[in-house]
Amino acid sequence: MKIAVLGGDGYCGWATALYLSNRGHSVSIVDNFIRRQWDFELGVQTLTPIRPLSDRLRIWQELTGKQIDLFVGDVMDYEFLSSTIQAIEPDAVVHFAEQRAAPYSMIDRKHAVFTQVNNVVGTLNLLFALREFRPDCHLIKLGTMGEYGTPNIDIEEGYITIEHNGRTDTVPYPKQPGSFYHLSKVHDSHNIMFTCKIWGLRATDLNQGVVYGTTTDEVAMDEALINRFDYDEVFGTVLNRFCVQAAIGTPLTVYGKGGQTRGFLDIRDTVRCVEIACLNPAAKGEFRVFNQFTEQFSVLDLARMVKAEGKKLGLEVELNHIPDPRVEAEEHYYNAKHSKLIELGLQPHLLSDSLLDSLMNIAMKYRDRIDSSMMMPQVNWRKARNDRQLQSGSAATTSEATQFEAVGVGAEKGNGHRAAKATKRAAAYSKR
Amino acid sequence: MKIAVLGGDGYCGWATALYLSNRGHSVSIVDNFIRRQWDFELGVQTLTPIRPLSDRLRIWQELTGKQIDLFVGDVMDYEFLSSTIQAIEPDAVVHFAEQRAAPYSMIDRKHAVFTQVNNVVGTLNLLFALREFRPDCHLIKLGTMGEYGTPNIDIEEGYITIEHNGRTDTVPYPKQPGSFYHLSKVHDSHNIMFTCKIWGLRATDLNQGVVYGTTTDEVAMDEALINRFDYDEVFGTVLNRFCVQAAIGTPLTVYGKGGQTRGFLDIRDTVRCVEIACLNPAAKGEFRVFNQFTEQFSVLDLARMVKAEGKKLGLEVELNHIPDPRVEAEEHYYNAKHSKLIELGLQPHLLSDSLLDSLMNIAMKYRDRIDSSMMMPQVNWRKARNDRQLQSGSAATTSEATQFEAVGVGAEKGNGHRAAKATKRAAAYSKR
Repeated sequence: MKIAVLGGDGYCGWATALYLSNRGHSVSIVDNFIRRQWDFELGVQTLTPIRPLSDRLRIWQELTGKQIDLFVGDVMDYEFLSSTIQAIEPDAVVHFAEQRAAPYSMIDRKHAVFTQVNNVVGTLNLLFALREFRPDCHLIKLGTMGEYGTPNIDIEEGYITIEHNGRTDTVPYPKQPGSFYHLSKVHDSHNIMFTCKIWGLRATDLNQGVVYGTTTDEVAMDEALINRFDYDEVFGTVLNRFCVQAAIGTPLTVYGKGGQTRGFLDIRDTVRCVEIACLNPAAKGEFRVFNQFTEQFSVLDLARMVKAEGKKLGLEVELNHIPDPRVEAEEHYYNAKHSKLIELGLQPHLLSDSLLDSLMNIAMKYRDRIDSSMMMPQVNWRKARNDRQLQSGSAATTSEATQFEAVGVGAEKGNGHRAAKATKRAAAYSKR
Repeated sequence: MKIAVLGGDGYCGWATALYLSNRGHSVSIVDNFIRRQWDFELGVQTLTPIRPLSDRLRIWQELTGKQIDLFVGDVMDYEFLSSTIQAIEPDAVVHFAEQRAAPYSMIDRKHAVFTQVNNVVGTLNLLFALREFRPDCHLIKLGTMGEYGTPNIDIEEGYITIEHNGRTDTVPYPKQPGSFYHLSKVHDSHNIMFTCKIWGLRATDLNQGVVYGTTTDEVAMDEALINRFDYDEVFGTVLNRFCVQAAIGTPLTVYGKGGQTRGFLDIRDTVRCVEIACLNPAAKGEFRVFNQFTEQFSVLDLARMVKAEGKKLGLEVELNHIPDPRVEAEEHYYNAKHSKLIELGLQPHLLSDSLLDSLMNIAMKYRDRIDSSMMMPQVNWRKARNDRQLQSGSAATTSEATQFEAVGVGAEKGNGHRAAKATKRAAAYSKR
């Protein structure tokens, strides 16, 4: 199967591209490396020393004989994106190419606007490109469980049947997202649903839970293939951050009471879920929603598990309940359905002591790269301007300006990158 | 009460600004005149010969002694918008400043992207400006009944109480909008709801039905104050278009079976509803939704009423059922609640023979200005590119390019307009 992975240099995208390639699919990555730029802006880096994508792809080919094609460019650039879709002729497009951090979107107005414009327009461009050049291609879009919020009723998979005043209808599940980022995903979902209806596109919205872990079978083949492992307060997901905190002996930062309950999954299940979606495409005109997670935990559950596991490793782990920088219920009902992927064959990797053990071992292995100042929350939902960037001084300003040029319609003026079918090119920075 | 009317040069905005001024409020208009630019792009014009805003405001002051301040600029330009909010210090902001035509948003990708970016970012900018500089100001946002779509259950006002698996919650009413424009309003609604929650803003979302009519008491004072009356297939609302078609003896263009049922209201009720919202502000942190319409009609109901009324005036009116250019149910259940504004004192102007009579008289009075080629639908929802602009040739291209520069982040680079507190300036075009 020919599969395009948009955002294939990122955390989930990289693991997914390798997994799909290893499973025998013909994989192309589309990426503009902006995720690496955000690290510079924020003054953070992944715990694991990731290589440039060009190196990674060369080594993957040396190890396995499998080639992954690379197209360097921005999904905001329609000329680039539509020519890339025409060049790849994909059967499925997996769309990870969005700004994915809630705190990043909450830094200030510019970051909120950037996140919504980047995500919404990138997805609109993709929908139009599919409509015009690949109308039967299956769109697999990464959404988030955070689109639903925390209603006081069970969360269904995308739709809910309502009986009201004696009549019944099945309607899109009401959304109550909790950040400008999560809002961008809700906007996307509505846009995609509409184009399935009017143009007969086929799409699967994977409402993914919080991902943890870094190692998949493919990534483990060689250290040069190592995946991102973000632990900072902006891009780090909570369990990864807790493991790093435990490893270096700083208290785990539990936001508020820690009763915030969410769906979680191992990155090894992320990659499998995406393949399951590819192999079982939505019907023409269908907008299908899968809730992609395997277990529910509260933040406090996770902190206690990490504390207990740390003890076995001889680590003294403290919990630090700090004021919640987000505006969210700290204790609430939560029961989200997640049976559709299981029915299609997903066999979950449940969170186990050995996985926690391995995460902490990774944290200890790379402890010299840990910046302990990056774990306390600096982005407060209640403020319209957060000084998150000040630390990186003028460098941050430069990077921000660069980014915002990408938001505009430079693409329309022909200064975007052209599709470059080359595995050895990762030269995006100098051109931006 | 100090009230800012964003988009005060448009159809609903102009009538609202005059009404509020006449009622003794201190009114400021904020507008960049882009609505007039769209007429040039599409090669259409309002049936009624509207004057430049500077003329209108001068004459309003001569007639009534009341001054309406004018701030010329774009809500996409945060520097302009935030300085304007600081200058006006409004108690209420009425936000009409969006691209409001569903067919316009469906022309092609550029128009879809423009509509969503313009509307979503303009509203985000306003939310941030209020949070930073006027946090107690009441935001009155024009939404649309089209956000709900046509579910098979009753439509409530913004929220619905759901009992599900033995538990109950009141959640946002599920949205199923029918164009990229309607989607932009849904995105707005979600963004506004979120900022009420995190920042304690107060907002009323007026989910307005289809507006008809052109005359209000204020507009009727002098022909120089005359309001827009759009009848073309892109910006014309259905009843206005039917009256024009009847007046010139061309068949009424009924899309499909004509069973599409919607909420409608007289523009005299639009202006009153806005004042009711101003006088009864939402509570701090409250996101309130009113369904703003007074009667439900199907398209075929309206066509038959116009036919009957035409007969009385000696006009031979034919109905022409043409293929529906939109993707929508042509027959469906529709029962939308609209009691909240009535409870706050709205006394509806129901659609009557005399109103239809007056609309047709207006159409006949200005019949020399009617371009009968502008009423057949040229924008097909099923196509990703519609040739709507070709007729206007290179002029359209220029206007489009101009528009898209406004979408970008020019504002960040300081090339936006500065707040200009002057009633005699309407010089936006030359600067765009």
